[in-house]
Amino acid sequence: MQRSLPTEMKFSLTATDPNSSARAGVVQTSHGEIETPIFMPVGTAGSVKAVHQRELENDIKAEIILGNTYHLYLRPSIDILETAGGLHKFIGWNKPILTDSGGYQVYSLSENRKIIESGVTFKSHIDGSTHFFSPENVMDIQRSIGADIIMAFDECTPYPCEYSYAKESMVLTHQWLTRCMARLNETEPRYGYEQTLFPIVQGSVYSDLREQSAEFVAAQNLKGNAIGGLSVGEPHDIMYEMTEKICRILPSDKPRYLMGVGTPENILECIALGIDMFDCVMPTRNARNGMLFTTQGIINIRNEKWKTDLSPIDSALGGYVSTFHSKAYLRHLIINKEILGAQIASIHNLTFYLWLVRQARNEIIKGTFRTWKDEMVKKVSARL
Amino acid sequence: MQRSLPTEMKFSLTATDPNSSARAGVVQTSHGEIETPIFMPVGTAGSVKAVHQRELENDIKAEIILGNTYHLYLRPSIDILETAGGLHKFIGWNKPILTDSGGYQVYSLSENRKIIESGVTFKSHIDGSTHFFSPENVMDIQRSIGADIIMAFDECTPYPCEYSYAKESMVLTHQWLTRCMARLNETEPRYGYEQTLFPIVQGSVYSDLREQSAEFVAAQNLKGNAIGGLSVGEPHDIMYEMTEKICRILPSDKPRYLMGVGTPENILECIALGIDMFDCVMPTRNARNGMLFTTQGIINIRNEKWKTDLSPIDSALGGYVSTFHSKAYLRHLIINKEILGAQIASIHNLTFYLWLVRQARNEIIKGTFRTWKDEMVKKVSARL
Repeated sequence: MQRSLPTEMKFSLTATDPNSSARAGVVQTSHGEIETPIFMPVGTAGSVKAVHQRELENDIKAEIILGNTYHLYLRPSIDILETAGGLHKFIGWNKPILTDSGGYQVYSLSENRKIIESGVTFKSHIDGSTHFFSPENVMDIQRSIGADIIMAFDECTPYPCEYSYAKESMVLTHQWLTRCMARLNETEPRYGYEQTLFPIVQGSVYSDLREQSAEFVAAQNLKGNAIGGLSVGEPHDIMYEMTEKICRILPSDKPRYLMGVGTPENILECIALGIDMFDCVMPTRNARNGMLFTTQGIINIRNEKWKTDLSPIDSALGGYVSTFHSKAYLRHLIINKEILGAQIASIHNLTFYLWLVRQARNEIIKGTFRTWKDEMVKKVSARL
Repeated sequence: MQRSLPTEMKFSLTATDPNSSARAGVVQTSHGEIETPIFMPVGTAGSVKAVHQRELENDIKAEIILGNTYHLYLRPSIDILETAGGLHKFIGWNKPILTDSGGYQVYSLSENRKIIESGVTFKSHIDGSTHFFSPENVMDIQRSIGADIIMAFDECTPYPCEYSYAKESMVLTHQWLTRCMARLNETEPRYGYEQTLFPIVQGSVYSDLREQSAEFVAAQNLKGNAIGGLSVGEPHDIMYEMTEKICRILPSDKPRYLMGVGTPENILECIALGIDMFDCVMPTRNARNGMLFTTQGIINIRNEKWKTDLSPIDSALGGYVSTFHSKAYLRHLIINKEILGAQIASIHNLTFYLWLVRQARNEIIKGTFRTWKDEMVKKVSARL
C-alpha cells in the first residue's frame, strides 16, 4: 500500500543533453514515479474534460494530472473532498496530483476581485458569492484536496504589464511565498502522504525582475520550482528568453515546472531550456474545437479537406482512438457536435502530448535531443 | 470472415414463458447473433451519444445498435458512407445495425414537411435545404448505409390523432410498404451481406386499425415485424393494450420490434406481451440530464441527497463506471456540466438496460419470468 508509506518527494536526474539544457529525470512521489520531461493533463474540476480516468491511465499514459483549486473549492467544495478522503479518492485517480493555487482563476474568471496584502477577495463566477483566498487558507485548501504537489499562492500578472506593477506584484508574491511556507510548516499532510510545495517565479517580461524572483525562489530550497506568468499573451521569443534566464538560476537538482505551457513547439523549446514539467488546457480545449496535434503536424479537422479522408487520425501515434477511427469520422462527429468527437479528439491530443514528452526523454537519454528537437519542432508545427 | 459469407437472417425461439407471452430467442444476422429480448442503443448520427464503440461492446455489451436514416442522410451524407464501405466501417462497429426509415425525424424535426402519396418533401433542420423521401429512395439510402435491418418507410401518426386521419395514414403506410418491398426486391444488398426489411404496424390507438394493420403486415411474411406509432404520448395502458392485440396477430416465429420504447417498466411489460426488440433514446438522453436507471430504482443524481453519497453508482449492476465511481462524484460532474458526467451516466444507463433485458431472457428460459417481472417492475420504477 503505497499510500500508507509517506515517501519524501525526490528528483533524480537520469541524463542531460550535451547540446542543450534538456534533462531527463524521475520525480518520486507517494503516488508513484513521474518520468520527466512530463506533460500534465489538466483536470480542472476533478475531470480531465471528456476523458475517463481509465483512458488517462491506459490510453494516454498520464503520470500526473492537475486539479484547479479555485474550481474544486467552489464545486464540489472542500467539505465533500475531505469526506471523500481527498481528490484522488473522489475522482478515482491513484497517481500524483498537482493543484494550482487558485490565483490564476481568481484573476481570470471571477468578478470584482480585490487584491490586498492579506489576500484576495473575489466573487464566484458561478453564483456571485463572495470568497477570500489568502496564502494561508489556500495552503489549507490544497492540503484538504490532497495534492501531492501544492503550488504557492501568487499573483499572475497579465501581459502587457507595467514595470512598476510587475515589481510590486513580484514582491507581494514573494511575501506570500514566505507565508505559504510558514503555513505548510505548521500544518500536517491531510491524508498520510507527503504534500510538497512548489514556489513560483514571477516578474512579467522583465529580465531583472525574473532573475531577482528566481534568486529568491531558489534560495527557499524547496523540492521543486515553478515559473508562472508566462504564456499569457507575450511573444514566444520573450517567453523563451525569460525561461532561459530563470532556468540558469533555478537549481538543476530540482524539477522545474513551466506553468500553462503550451503548444508542442513551446514544449520542445522549453525542454531544451531545462524545463521538466508542463501543463496546458490546449490539448483538451482545442480538441473540442476540432484542432488536432499529430505526429505529422496540426490538423483542423473541420476543414473540408478531411471530409472523405478515411485514413486513421494518426497511425504513427498508435492507440485506440488515433488508429481505430478515421479523420472523416472524427470530422463528422465534431461538425455534428457529437460528444464522442470531443472524447476522441481529447484522448488523441493528450496521447500525442504524452508521446511527445516521452520521445523527448528518450532522445535526451540517447544524447540526440538537440537535432531531434529541431526537426520535430518543424514537423509538429506544420499545418496540414 | 463473417462479412464475406452472407447469412440469411433467422430467428429461433429458445424458450417461451408459461405465464405470459414472453419469449427468448436468437436473431442470426451476417454481423452476428442477437439474443432476444434485446435493447438497441440509439446511435443517431453514427454515434451512441457520449459512448465509445469499445465501451458499447465491452462495458454495455450491446448486440445491435440503431442508426437514424434522416440524420445520416443529412450528415455525413450517403456519399461518404458509401465511400467508407457503409456505416459499420465508417464508425467502427462490426455487430448488427438497424436503421429507421427517417420518417419519424421528418415528422418531428424538419420544417415544412409535406406528405403526398409519392413521398414526403421536407426541409433540413440543419440548413433549411429541401429534400424528398419516398419509399423507394429510403430503401436505397438504407442499403447504402449498410443496415442489417432496414425499416419500412411509414407515416408515424402523432397522439392524439383523429380516427379518419389514422386510417388514411395507415392505408398510405401499407401502400408504401408494398413499394418498399418492390424496391428491395429489385435492388441488391450493397456490401455483400443480407439486408432485411421489417414492416411497421400503424393505426394509432384504434384497435380495429391496429388489428387490420397487423394482419396486413403479417401477410407480407417478412423476416421480422415492427410496431410504430406508440410511445408518442399516449397513456401506458393504451400502449400495452395495442401491443397485446398486435402481438396476438404478428407471427410468433418472427421477431417483434416495438419502436421507441421505453422506460424499464415499459420494456418489462412489453416483453411479457411478446415483444423481442426495443430501442429508445431515454437511457442516453436522460443520462445527460442526470436521470439514472439502476437495479434499485430511479435516481435524479442532481438532487441534494446524493451530494455526499460516496457509495458506487450501482454496485449490484457491476461494470467499470457503475462500481468505480460514486454517486457524489457523478452528481458533481453532472451539476458542473462536465462531459465526463454525460459519459459515465450514459454508459451506466445503457449497461442497466442491457442487463435488464438479459435478466429477463434468463428468467424466461428458467420459466420464472412472470413473477420476476412483477417484482422487477416495482423495483425499477421506484424513485430513490
